[in-house]
Amino acid sequence: MRVLFTFNIKEDQLRSLEMGFPNTEFSFTKNIEDVPLDSYEIIVTYGEDITPSVLDRAPSLKWIMVASAGVEKMPLDVIAEKGIIVSNVRGIHKTPMAESVLAHILSLGRALPTLREQQERKEWNMKVKQTELRGSTALILGPGAIGSEIGRLLNAFGVYTIGCNSSGDRAQFMDETIPFDQLKEVLPKADIVISILPSTQETKGMLDDSYFKLMKNTALFMNFGRGDLVKESTLVHALKHGEIGHAVLDVFEKEPLPAESELWELGNITISPHVSSHSGKYVERAMEFFTENLSKWQQNDRELLNLINLKKGY
Amino acid sequence: MRVLFTFNIKEDQLRSLEMGFPNTEFSFTKNIEDVPLDSYEIIVTYGEDITPSVLDRAPSLKWIMVASAGVEKMPLDVIAEKGIIVSNVRGIHKTPMAESVLAHILSLGRALPTLREQQERKEWNMKVKQTELRGSTALILGPGAIGSEIGRLLNAFGVYTIGCNSSGDRAQFMDETIPFDQLKEVLPKADIVISILPSTQETKGMLDDSYFKLMKNTALFMNFGRGDLVKESTLVHALKHGEIGHAVLDVFEKEPLPAESELWELGNITISPHVSSHSGKYVERAMEFFTENLSKWQQNDRELLNLINLKKGY
Repeated sequence: MRVLFTFNIKEDQLRSLEMGFPNTEFSFTKNIEDVPLDSYEIIVTYGEDITPSVLDRAPSLKWIMVASAGVEKMPLDVIAEKGIIVSNVRGIHKTPMAESVLAHILSLGRALPTLREQQERKEWNMKVKQTELRGSTALILGPGAIGSEIGRLLNAFGVYTIGCNSSGDRAQFMDETIPFDQLKEVLPKADIVISILPSTQETKGMLDDSYFKLMKNTALFMNFGRGDLVKESTLVHALKHGEIGHAVLDVFEKEPLPAESELWELGNITISPHVSSHSGKYVERAMEFFTENLSKWQQNDRELLNLINLKKGY
Repeated sequence: MRVLFTFNIKEDQLRSLEMGFPNTEFSFTKNIEDVPLDSYEIIVTYGEDITPSVLDRAPSLKWIMVASAGVEKMPLDVIAEKGIIVSNVRGIHKTPMAESVLAHILSLGRALPTLREQQERKEWNMKVKQTELRGSTALILGPGAIGSEIGRLLNAFGVYTIGCNSSGDRAQFMDETIPFDQLKEVLPKADIVISILPSTQETKGMLDDSYFKLMKNTALFMNFGRGDLVKESTLVHALKHGEIGHAVLDVFEKEPLPAESELWELGNITISPHVSSHSGKYVERAMEFFTENLSKWQQNDRELLNLINLKKGY
């Protein structure tokens, strides 16, 4: 069996693939246009190089393993016609993102930025305002793979978790789950509001001024989903007028955040340049998904992890 | 039944005591020397005001509830002679301390200090070195109430926990536990070394240069126990010569840390002015311990929570 990778992996990662699958030949190219594709049953790719002409040149292709979360750039209809299946690495970002979210929450609660300022001034001052996370309430907008992982960790800290999604169907590690149309009722209860929502027609601009007015004055608002969930002007207003206590933003309406943005100037904001999902372990994780699926594949089990529904596109 | 508090509690805390224990009279004084003590069966105190003469003036006293962790300043021999029992609030610090420890670990791993510096310069830079906590190994020196709570949370993050105590007896939420005399064997495995050890003859100066030489060059060393565990000169040497990666210190050989200490000058250190246990919820927590014990007491159950062994002193 022959497998083509269109990105490189580390020596030791290749060695463990070869040890685990001795009857399989692994080839690598950085440019799929340069190589003949006739003999490959499986292609492992970040997804952007799969075009209809590539598919025409790959008559043996049966499975495309996409080492990223989105497949929106792939010709899914052509792939479906040819009977090829596609799997991705959905959830690969959940560990680094959940660790980032918890890092920010705990760092603010335990006053780490203040301690750091004091340290810079060589100041020993024990009168630092700190709070406990235990016993607080978090509202998680978009409790999918990442949101549930955040919920799992918050639960371990004794936080009550309320998930909010379009259906209101119960989500994992949420003490309760509500639909979007009940969001305004629960906002006043939340000490922390975290969005990991994707950008869809429903979520674009969803959080307008009226939502921030309902939040606690002390609330921590975190956007780790997509920047178009809330207008920058809405955030600036809420933060300037103390409608909420603090914001941690990893995503912005416009990225990179322009130097002239008012957000940079505010005292009650933490700006993270869309790095919460970054991790030195990305390829390692992707290989774990691939290895598990390749084992299934070789046992003729076609119920792969993270199979994409080619009609729905996710 | 009459109970004397030698510190004040909040109105609502008093009200809920009175609601829960309608047949009990609660009195309050800030100076135990000022009041007659004949009729009190129970005294609730921070512990420093209990002297032999106080005990002589309190013939009805049967139980002293100490709303702090240490009882080393109390005349335990006299208390034992009179058949009085003592309970404390052991473990009351575990929530804020464990949250502080996790806050520091996650904040460093997810590069929050670097993000903050970039924010101050209005710099959008996505090339930030971040690591994942999941899959790492933590060594916990002193896995008691606080250390186990830290272990519980680290386990939730997928961290392998090694506890280290004098007996080597298995401690809660530790994947393994080793005795002090095997510490040097496991030090090279640890990504994080956290001490919550108390100050005893055995621990004083325990971590000398040779221990730091065995740690990973990237190791994070955290002292949240007592400052005399390691000499300041040892720490300065280890940090300056890159024997470890970073230190987070909440306790110091000399507190407050003197302005002339070299520690202030180092780039790979976080200085916390002995505040990791602080919490706005202290009295609330102490009242939870007291309420549970008072219920037992009134049902003639003398197996109180956190009873002190008056001979051992803890």
